Amino acid sequence: MTRSKPKVDFPTGKVRRFLEPGPIVLVSSSWRGQRNIMTLGWHTVLEFSPSLVGLMISAGNHSFELIRSSRECVINLPTTALTAEVVKIGNTSGAKLDKFAAFGLTPEAAAKVEAPLIGECHANFECRMHEDALVERYNFFIFEVVKAHVAPSPEHPRTLHYTGDGVFMESGRIISRRSLFRPELLD
Amino acid sequence: MTRSKPKVDFPTGKVRRFLEPGPIVLVSSSWRGQRNIMTLGWHTVLEFSPSLVGLMISAGNHSFELIRSSRECVINLPTTALTAEVVKIGNTSGAKLDKFAAFGLTPEAAAKVEAPLIGECHANFECRMHEDALVERYNFFIFEVVKAHVAPSPEHPRTLHYTGDGVFMESGRIISRRSLFRPELLD
Repeated sequence: MTRSKPKVDFPTGKVRRFLEPGPIVLVSSSWRGQRNIMTLGWHTVLEFSPSLVGLMISAGNHSFELIRSSRECVINLPTTALTAEVVKIGNTSGAKLDKFAAFGLTPEAAAKVEAPLIGECHANFECRMHEDALVERYNFFIFEVVKAHVAPSPEHPRTLHYTGDGVFMESGRIISRRSLFRPELLD
Repeated sequence: MTRSKPKVDFPTGKVRRFLEPGPIVLVSSSWRGQRNIMTLGWHTVLEFSPSLVGLMISAGNHSFELIRSSRECVINLPTTALTAEVVKIGNTSGAKLDKFAAFGLTPEAAAKVEAPLIGECHANFECRMHEDALVERYNFFIFEVVKAHVAPSPEHPRTLHYTGDGVFMESGRIISRRSLFRPELLD
């Protein structure tokens, strides 16, 4: 069983490091005593500072109302060690079960939001709603990452990238082209 | 040199297959005799039907005005065979050079938009503006994919996923968990 991972603070302005490559994430939420986790592959980075991310959260999900009401969530980054849990979370509804308990995941207290962190994930990004203009028409939420926690190693965790139809792509080889970039484009 | 790839029609409602895993894409555009290409990693799928995708196109890019004015673009999917071209495109401005000519890329006629396809890419998704409500405040464009072209093979092309700081992650191993998914979640 995967264990809860110790993490350190990470600059919120650099979360693109983990989100821009496009991994499946686990979004945790809580509202009035209910908590839930959903899988999500439809997200994008939108800005460095403030640290903005956009999430398309389908209204059919149990998490939708928890997140819309609380105006908060946590974006958790699973590695391939959690593949089984990712699949189970995506195939069940929080209306009928507590996914933390059912799948042996550890809820940990966040620093700035009520929604729980998932201890076993490689990184946790605490988010507050920044813009809800497109929630009604497109289920598209813009959040600000207000606190980021990241496990110090490995530097390049093996993440899961969903292609649809039950098939994931695992993150692969690292290719550095740093020497070819204009300095102002580097972090 | 990578050659222009023959492609076949692909269902627009299934472009998540290629975009949800989060690859770097090349966005081509044209307006009043100018054409350009930019690299883009900040995008998300938003809906199956109509086939909607969201792109954050920074206003500092030469492509921004071409795309805002024409209300069209093409999302092109490069593989690792085009890594050098991806880096060059991201490090130069279309204000000063024609990137098709400078980097040996083949502009091909699209079916439904004026912007050119990039022949050497694995897939080309022709897009028309669907929603511009967040363009002013967030540089966030919502496009409808109106025509999709995909090379028949390989089934799982090696794509590039950007982590910032000049470093890419290459797409890796394929992991199928199809047998564990509820039927209504499969394509």
